[in-house]
Amino acid sequence: MSNQDTKEPTLSDRTLQSAEGDISPEGQISKNAAKKAAKMAKQAADKAEKAEAKGIGQSEAKKPTSKAAKKKIEGAALIGIDVAKEEDFPGWYQQVLIKGDMLDYYDVSGCFILKPASYFVWETIQQWFNHKIKKMGVRNCAFPMFVSEDVLKREKDHIEGFAAEVAWVTHAGSTPLERKIAIRPTSETVMYPYYAKWIRSHRDLPLRLNQWNSVVRWEFKHPQPFLRTREFLWQEGHTAHLTEAAAGEEVLEILDHYAHVYEDLLAVPVVKGRKTEKEKFAGGYYTTTVEGYIPSTGRGIQGGTSHCLGQNFSKMFNITVEDPTVKGEEKKPPVYVWQNSWGLSTRTIGVMVMIHSDNRGLVLPPRVAEIQTIVIPVGLTAKTTEEVRQKLYAEIDNLVDIISASGVRVDSDKREGYSPGWKFNEWELRGVPVRIEFGPGESAGQFVTVSRRDTPGKDGKTTIPIAELSTAIPALLDAIHNDLYRRADEEFRAHRKLITNWEDFTPALNDKNVCLIPHCLTEDCEDQIKEMSKRKAEEDSGEPQDAKAPSMGAKSLCIPFDQPEGIEPGITKCTNPQCTRLADKWCMFGRSY
Amino acid sequence: MSNQDTKEPTLSDRTLQSAEGDISPEGQISKNAAKKAAKMAKQAADKAEKAEAKGIGQSEAKKPTSKAAKKKIEGAALIGIDVAKEEDFPGWYQQVLIKGDMLDYYDVSGCFILKPASYFVWETIQQWFNHKIKKMGVRNCAFPMFVSEDVLKREKDHIEGFAAEVAWVTHAGSTPLERKIAIRPTSETVMYPYYAKWIRSHRDLPLRLNQWNSVVRWEFKHPQPFLRTREFLWQEGHTAHLTEAAAGEEVLEILDHYAHVYEDLLAVPVVKGRKTEKEKFAGGYYTTTVEGYIPSTGRGIQGGTSHCLGQNFSKMFNITVEDPTVKGEEKKPPVYVWQNSWGLSTRTIGVMVMIHSDNRGLVLPPRVAEIQTIVIPVGLTAKTTEEVRQKLYAEIDNLVDIISASGVRVDSDKREGYSPGWKFNEWELRGVPVRIEFGPGESAGQFVTVSRRDTPGKDGKTTIPIAELSTAIPALLDAIHNDLYRRADEEFRAHRKLITNWEDFTPALNDKNVCLIPHCLTEDCEDQIKEMSKRKAEEDSGEPQDAKAPSMGAKSLCIPFDQPEGIEPGITKCTNPQCTRLADKWCMFGRSY
Repeated sequence: MSNQDTKEPTLSDRTLQSAEGDISPEGQISKNAAKKAAKMAKQAADKAEKAEAKGIGQSEAKKPTSKAAKKKIEGAALIGIDVAKEEDFPGWYQQVLIKGDMLDYYDVSGCFILKPASYFVWETIQQWFNHKIKKMGVRNCAFPMFVSEDVLKREKDHIEGFAAEVAWVTHAGSTPLERKIAIRPTSETVMYPYYAKWIRSHRDLPLRLNQWNSVVRWEFKHPQPFLRTREFLWQEGHTAHLTEAAAGEEVLEILDHYAHVYEDLLAVPVVKGRKTEKEKFAGGYYTTTVEGYIPSTGRGIQGGTSHCLGQNFSKMFNITVEDPTVKGEEKKPPVYVWQNSWGLSTRTIGVMVMIHSDNRGLVLPPRVAEIQTIVIPVGLTAKTTEEVRQKLYAEIDNLVDIISASGVRVDSDKREGYSPGWKFNEWELRGVPVRIEFGPGESAGQFVTVSRRDTPGKDGKTTIPIAELSTAIPALLDAIHNDLYRRADEEFRAHRKLITNWEDFTPALNDKNVCLIPHCLTEDCEDQIKEMSKRKAEEDSGEPQDAKAPSMGAKSLCIPFDQPEGIEPGITKCTNPQCTRLADKWCMFGRSY
Repeated sequence: MSNQDTKEPTLSDRTLQSAEGDISPEGQISKNAAKKAAKMAKQAADKAEKAEAKGIGQSEAKKPTSKAAKKKIEGAALIGIDVAKEEDFPGWYQQVLIKGDMLDYYDVSGCFILKPASYFVWETIQQWFNHKIKKMGVRNCAFPMFVSEDVLKREKDHIEGFAAEVAWVTHAGSTPLERKIAIRPTSETVMYPYYAKWIRSHRDLPLRLNQWNSVVRWEFKHPQPFLRTREFLWQEGHTAHLTEAAAGEEVLEILDHYAHVYEDLLAVPVVKGRKTEKEKFAGGYYTTTVEGYIPSTGRGIQGGTSHCLGQNFSKMFNITVEDPTVKGEEKKPPVYVWQNSWGLSTRTIGVMVMIHSDNRGLVLPPRVAEIQTIVIPVGLTAKTTEEVRQKLYAEIDNLVDIISASGVRVDSDKREGYSPGWKFNEWELRGVPVRIEFGPGESAGQFVTVSRRDTPGKDGKTTIPIAELSTAIPALLDAIHNDLYRRADEEFRAHRKLITNWEDFTPALNDKNVCLIPHCLTEDCEDQIKEMSKRKAEEDSGEPQDAKAPSMGAKSLCIPFDQPEGIEPGITKCTNPQCTRLADKWCMFGRSY
């Protein structure tokens, strides 16, 4: 690229600036600016402390333990992440979310605030998914959040799966309600009495409705932002079909959409498969799933599920049509409809953060980043004349216009009183995929200096002539997406072990793998495997999940659709040495969220 | 237009068909089809009755009284609306919503199901409004639905406004919670503790967040779909500013957006103004509002409110920044931020339905109609060959492609087993703005026959050459929007009376008017006016609102921004004869929802 001379010296200086920010007195940052930044950081810290003292937010946030404090990243800036992802994953996750401006803790336990940056991710998923399902003929609607006790309890297996976690409203103002009312933990029983009413003929099928709402499951396990929360946002689709085949086709179509949300939007690889009988949806017929993997903990994570409910709910709620295949004038026997339900939640956001982010903060995949490119003026000092400054700002506005016209979400950061180094730090924390630096050098050479958030240091830095910006920036964002996905996919593949000797199973888990084993798919056997792969602690203790991850037992994650070779029917045995059954399929087991 | 000859006979026949459906044996409808339709209608009615017997839906729906039953529209088809808007407005409203497929009743009192057609209206409003507020720099986010008792009660006036209606969660599963938790009735107290934490400097201002969510107000008054419901969908914007001026500017900008939602999307005229002290938001500084008018009842209705909260909440929640206007190094005094909140709810949908719909069912303004144009094959009989039928269907697919390419949401109804008359009836009930009929006659003449939903009979019927469809249909939809708006606006203007003699006040109300009067704007005087304009019943009885409308007292709706002339400062007296104060402004009073 051109202007190599102009570029070189600028590059190294600013890298230093970026790592140390204004905290370092070296480099081109004025002492005044450094003092100012330090003062601001102190004010911020003071204010946060005061708020905490009042019990606002963070009541559940992990306090740094003395052990964790020791693991603070050396030289980390005051406003940066001060624990390492490799050393204290839960502490790191919490800091990345809070300092990356994605989330805040809330004073009702298990509930969290989704700040605009994370809500934007959700809105992007909504938009993409809405487009897909509307094409399929699914329509959005809104059912009430409340459900009466009678209706909730109509399907026995189903309510057993949720009963302990249901939040009950008992009073309005100071008046006790005649009957307590539940807040939906999911909407099967909310919606299906109306399906029975609305579906009057096979001509009303398929009925396909979807809701974007929040549901409440008052879990008593340790909450974790996005992954386990008492209220969470999701979509829930509920459909009714005439035949099992039609229902089954939709189940897989939706699962594909879920896989694409992860892979094409969040740059997260997933494995598609079917849940075992033990792990399927309470009251359903079969459950399909997309399963992800968190490299730092070596644990699997359920990403989204698409259930075929069979005729179980239609029998409970009496959802029938006359059989249209019976011809002639005689009385047509009623047939129960085939139903599906499928849901994807804001858990997606937690998985994305855990996989891509690093010790400098959030790393946002470009397609879901509210700001994809930030332009920061550099090389302005106290000696810069107002005229030069304004000229540079005008040029920056022009850059923003060019990039914006190419469909990229771009902004500039011309705030006064913050040094470039402080800004670099902040936008890195917030995970903006591409940073553009623009100073007098770049202006003279008619190029910009570009840094990739996902590739720290010199490797991620380059220059782009202004004339090429409108094609180069969109291409760069795509390249970043692809690289994020490729790296995560390589990591997942490297940690998906095919195991046929039981002796290798727990060691593989301990080495942060998930394991595919030939398995009989029975519930008993899964229970044994879970027990045998535990080390010491109990699973549902009040401890943070990650603290006990190395010791927890393995659950079946899914029976992958993509089956390895090697199971000989009638010959290959189940991998569990205590099990005498034959293996049916390769089943993926892992410690999990 | 061309093909006058081909058109004429077709027109009159189908108009008859449309009005009477298959119930009438006349016209070109086969007896067989009529029998079939009658059978389907009976099945539907039976199934609905069975569902009702089980307590599903409609538990609160108004049962036709013998009086109302007498008012049934003569000759109304079985599936159509069978009470007249002029005779039994609440019964008509309920039927229009249910038969128009907008809503269903739910088995938890005061809660309703928003079916896809009404949710589509809401999604359209969301999309439009999101676009506008994002341009202003407002960002969407999600706060929890729960709020602790302590926080809820922090602002005294505010909580007094909501306390009696707050729903309380006291149990999770069978476990009592340590402290009961409220479901938000609105989010001021949910959000502002975090504003105090997040706003650290004047550089963090303005902070502008918005949520699309549902809130719960457990009112004990008679519920009414969309207008008064215990859970409702809305958006709530919450912003913080450095100055009163900046806050005030936003209040009006948002109010303009609300007016445009009503006028440009829903074709509903509104009056912009300010609420009196008596009617302003609990705990706020001042409230601006858009006020609508329901001609059938002569009542005003609050359409959406944009509040300046002043510094009241920021003082309670201690939301401050250092005063940036103080220069130099000395300690800068803290200043409390200026806050706004503004909300628009699904009430919009109820207002729209009440104003435009008629005795044939729903009338949807084109811009919010999920289906804007429906194409129905006509002129096919039992004698039609399969070849001719398929050729006509292919031509219809082509029409749909042409119209769709011009950006119109269009569909065709090729369902077998339903006659054209039955389909006309159904799509009229559902309020689709434009119906296109296409049969062998149209095919031969290369034109389509078009009917406007908003203009029944011959006046709304015309033909359009196929070659002109791609421009004519969008133009027709705009014309329909404009006509709907114009008619509603004329109606509202005709019923906004300027009154200066108290003797004329209550008679004007009784004639279904709202009244602008010179008024002192004091709370006492408003109370007197309310009392004096009552006739007999108490306002908050358990009776349906509309039943008591003629007798209820008048409230102030707003102080319109657009003030008539005629008040002489220091001379003009308040219109209330019991009031000795001078008039301050023209104030709009009315019986209201």
